[in-house]
Amino acid sequence: MSLLVVGSVAFDSIETPFDKIEKVIGGAATYICYSAANFNNQVQLVSVIGNDFPQEVIQDLEARNINTEGLQLKENEKSFHWSGKYHTDMNHRDTLATELNVLENFDPVLPDSYKNSEFVMLGNLAPQVQKQVLDQMTTKPKLVVMDTMNFWMDIALDALKETISMVDVLVINDEEARQLSGQYSLLKASKIIRAMGPQYLIIKKGEHGALLFEGDKIFSAPALPLADVFDPTGAGDTFAGGFIGYLAQSGDISFENMKRAIIYGSALASYCCEEFGPKKLQEINGSDLEARVDEFVNLMQIDFKVEA
Amino acid sequence: MSLLVVGSVAFDSIETPFDKIEKVIGGAATYICYSAANFNNQVQLVSVIGNDFPQEVIQDLEARNINTEGLQLKENEKSFHWSGKYHTDMNHRDTLATELNVLENFDPVLPDSYKNSEFVMLGNLAPQVQKQVLDQMTTKPKLVVMDTMNFWMDIALDALKETISMVDVLVINDEEARQLSGQYSLLKASKIIRAMGPQYLIIKKGEHGALLFEGDKIFSAPALPLADVFDPTGAGDTFAGGFIGYLAQSGDISFENMKRAIIYGSALASYCCEEFGPKKLQEINGSDLEARVDEFVNLMQIDFKVEA
Repeated sequence: MSLLVVGSVAFDSIETPFDKIEKVIGGAATYICYSAANFNNQVQLVSVIGNDFPQEVIQDLEARNINTEGLQLKENEKSFHWSGKYHTDMNHRDTLATELNVLENFDPVLPDSYKNSEFVMLGNLAPQVQKQVLDQMTTKPKLVVMDTMNFWMDIALDALKETISMVDVLVINDEEARQLSGQYSLLKASKIIRAMGPQYLIIKKGEHGALLFEGDKIFSAPALPLADVFDPTGAGDTFAGGFIGYLAQSGDISFENMKRAIIYGSALASYCCEEFGPKKLQEINGSDLEARVDEFVNLMQIDFKVEA
Repeated sequence: MSLLVVGSVAFDSIETPFDKIEKVIGGAATYICYSAANFNNQVQLVSVIGNDFPQEVIQDLEARNINTEGLQLKENEKSFHWSGKYHTDMNHRDTLATELNVLENFDPVLPDSYKNSEFVMLGNLAPQVQKQVLDQMTTKPKLVVMDTMNFWMDIALDALKETISMVDVLVINDEEARQLSGQYSLLKASKIIRAMGPQYLIIKKGEHGALLFEGDKIFSAPALPLADVFDPTGAGDTFAGGFIGYLAQSGDISFENMKRAIIYGSALASYCCEEFGPKKLQEINGSDLEARVDEFVNLMQIDFKVEA
């Protein structure tokens, strides 16, 4: 099915306890697209870049069936650039610099062909910009999934809540869920956040997996214990891209199918952590993905019917 | 089957963000016994108490089919007493006071009827004392499970490693696994720790569940998201008691059955957190336990065969 993706297409400079890299390809929408490209959908990218962004990456995305008609090029500006540093536990990072550049006045303009997209993935961006995308849709999408971060809770909470009220699935991490709800218990937090609008809530817990909430139902997905987490940048975006990519391919947005979508998103996110930038995502193929999904299934496989 | 349990039987004084209590019944062996009593085994308790420990608790344990022949009473001494304070996240606590009392010179003496027990649970204690219990066994047990804590890694690492080399299953938390192995990755840590002796390793992750490792196999068990964690004291002991109690009842020590045992242990541990001390464990019955196990099964239930 059609899947509209909005988010940043950018550069990241990353320092981990193991290595560092300057200006690797990054951005929420980049990771979402590379991840969603593993499924059979018409992916439509909305973003903005400066004249410093490499044309080969755009071509690579197009070669993966990503429509870049909605990718704006600002000839005399520079692309968004984020710099960050990870600590030993890799679940926490410090932002060293944020150069907004083209994102400062980003006005997302949807090509007409995007306006009736059936699935919409709002990658992490200012909530006002995310809302502008939804406002341009001419048909109500089948499913809108939204990612965000604590930064917007700090500086734009009212706008954030307005956008949250318009989406079906909110994807945030555990710290963000606690901040947004004011509750430490994730069960209590999930109720408060879903009362803000979204029918579904996904709470990402990094190396501890993810939780999916709807009504009184909860699904707990494991994370694959990895020997090395080389660089977790983009893992959350990759998770979201795999989640919505899987759902859009099947068209089935039931709770049961969302569970499977979470495992696909988790499998792709685990690959993402193995290299700097989207490199590993560029390398893997369908059988790599299925093999990793099988590892997740083995990890959680239990049979209560055959007792000794 | 027969299940020998060694550990402290003691008092705890506990402060949480919600409430505080002085000298509630506690101790690793107490929680292990209350938890293991949910299964059909001959539980044999080895521990030591002073003359301040309430006789009603001993009677309550005996009424649950716990053999207390190996429970020593030191007439002129006081029972072990631990005081601690939890922070908001409930995964971390500060020890405020440790009055060893009767534990200071604890010499575990096994009654003859205990010496051929088929299952042995070494609750958290000085590793030298845990080893003394194993040294008195006249028959090699079918399965020895050991709990310990970072305190023994700090002050008695060599003795700890010696006892670890004698057991089949080691149960520790994620911080302890990292400390013991010197590795941050739990996958790497699990290999190093199992090379110390135990065929199986269980890493407890509190509100994030638990991991079971054997050979190249890994099982990831979820934790139940709770509205309130009232008091996590004893949750780890309760987990261990449920784990070995379930295994001893069936006599099946396969990896597949250990997965189920982990879910039973997790279900009992989740009940333990709902009240101060072992109160909730004293109240629940078999159908409460099965209902909680069903909640865990629902939490992790996923079907990859029926795709849309």
